[in-house]
Amino acid sequence: MEIYSRIRDIQAKVRELKAEGLSIGYVPTMGALHEGHISLLRRSDEENNISVCSIFVNPIQFNNQIDLEKYPRTLKEDSEKLDKANCDIVFAPSVDEMYPDKVSESYDFGLLEKLMEGALRPGHFNGVAVVVKRLFDICMPDKAYFGEKDFQQLMVIRALVKQENIPVKIIGCPIIREPDGLAMSSRNVRLTPGERRIAPEIFKTLDMMKEKAGKKNIKEILTEAENQLEQHPGVKIDYIQIVDESTLVPITNWDETDNIRAFVALFLGEVRLIDNMKL
Amino acid sequence: MEIYSRIRDIQAKVRELKAEGLSIGYVPTMGALHEGHISLLRRSDEENNISVCSIFVNPIQFNNQIDLEKYPRTLKEDSEKLDKANCDIVFAPSVDEMYPDKVSESYDFGLLEKLMEGALRPGHFNGVAVVVKRLFDICMPDKAYFGEKDFQQLMVIRALVKQENIPVKIIGCPIIREPDGLAMSSRNVRLTPGERRIAPEIFKTLDMMKEKAGKKNIKEILTEAENQLEQHPGVKIDYIQIVDESTLVPITNWDETDNIRAFVALFLGEVRLIDNMKL
Repeated sequence: MEIYSRIRDIQAKVRELKAEGLSIGYVPTMGALHEGHISLLRRSDEENNISVCSIFVNPIQFNNQIDLEKYPRTLKEDSEKLDKANCDIVFAPSVDEMYPDKVSESYDFGLLEKLMEGALRPGHFNGVAVVVKRLFDICMPDKAYFGEKDFQQLMVIRALVKQENIPVKIIGCPIIREPDGLAMSSRNVRLTPGERRIAPEIFKTLDMMKEKAGKKNIKEILTEAENQLEQHPGVKIDYIQIVDESTLVPITNWDETDNIRAFVALFLGEVRLIDNMKL
Repeated sequence: MEIYSRIRDIQAKVRELKAEGLSIGYVPTMGALHEGHISLLRRSDEENNISVCSIFVNPIQFNNQIDLEKYPRTLKEDSEKLDKANCDIVFAPSVDEMYPDKVSESYDFGLLEKLMEGALRPGHFNGVAVVVKRLFDICMPDKAYFGEKDFQQLMVIRALVKQENIPVKIIGCPIIREPDGLAMSSRNVRLTPGERRIAPEIFKTLDMMKEKAGKKNIKEILTEAENQLEQHPGVKIDYIQIVDESTLVPITNWDETDNIRAFVALFLGEVRLIDNMKL
């Protein structure tokens, strides 16, 4: 496995590999790798000749300086995990390398950036799009792999690729969960033991919603979900929604569409967690 | 020299020293120490039995995530400099130690936070006040030393101490400059060689304003200063002002007050520099 920190070096390497006719699979990450990331890498390894993983904590997608500073940084452990998972190339640039100058790009994702995470995290998806566009230009992959845990992000990336005519195939991959159902996330390590015991309630609540989907009134299910989560200490709900998967617009009637997904975002103490499930 | 990273440990130590009747001088910093910081420490060393210096890059006083990430972090070199400068105690906490929970404190500094830096950096002075209040509670100094380069910050700290009845004497200390006049700043290392050659123009411009103070029309001097600075490539002026030192309100007539100070804030390439001079 080779590790690059300079754009020109990894670009030269990728160009060389592509000239040999090898296909490139790519997994962009912010490090603090867990089984969710590794599952993306395995999929890339299966479908491509070469797998590239980037590790870059993207400052401009954070809404809060303390959250940015507290984001776990574990490059050494990450590299070991990637090596074991058959990763061929790691790209771990500095902030100076990725952002030598002020960021001026501004994308328009319409409703997508106004709903759910977009409404609560102003500028977040623009920050995601800026870094992913730059990383795609650097790594020049054939396919790129994103987890469905950040479902709205996956939709933003698909919109970005379409808008900018980027020749990368975007592959969405299923959420990987802990044995108790908690969706894997780099933020989970910041939960206290007490919070960690409560966190699987998010999955249980989504599961309850799936169970009752199509049977019970949507409003009633949302209220029940809210009550189920709020009974736990330290829980502050940002949103619980049942939406049309293709637009993220909330539905009021089960017959509106076949592609329905439930989303939860909440604070558990100081840690913000999100999760979702197809109903 | 002793280095502490935990609040309870340094508090226990400071309590012990105070119980022995020793006086505590304190210099709060964000690290990346230069002669400006060291001059504060020397002054503290002269006026107190014990000198404490804190090193903490305070995330909540940054307005921009990239600026926060690029802020130089040089704890090892800083410790060596402090040791040489007779510092007795260093406090270098983690972000988790200083901000275990969400920050809820909100201070009101009136006009002070609406003028100059306050206008351009929303939330900045509240972030400064939050961390300084917490650091004062931790280090319990008799006197605390701040440089006049951040003149408005010094005024905010004085206002904080008055509002909150904090029993710390605030000492403002003169700006320390490079031989060519550039005010020392941790951000100077981020200037390119070309920018570094232009940077002393800020001092020269302030000096010109001082030279002409009382003799020439204020508006004319401000225009001249603007022209003098803007002729250099990469310069983007945030503000140039001539103000009443006690309120920071711009004056229009030299007779309004005897305490007049000129302020400059500008971007030189990607680096924001500020400076000021008593006229």
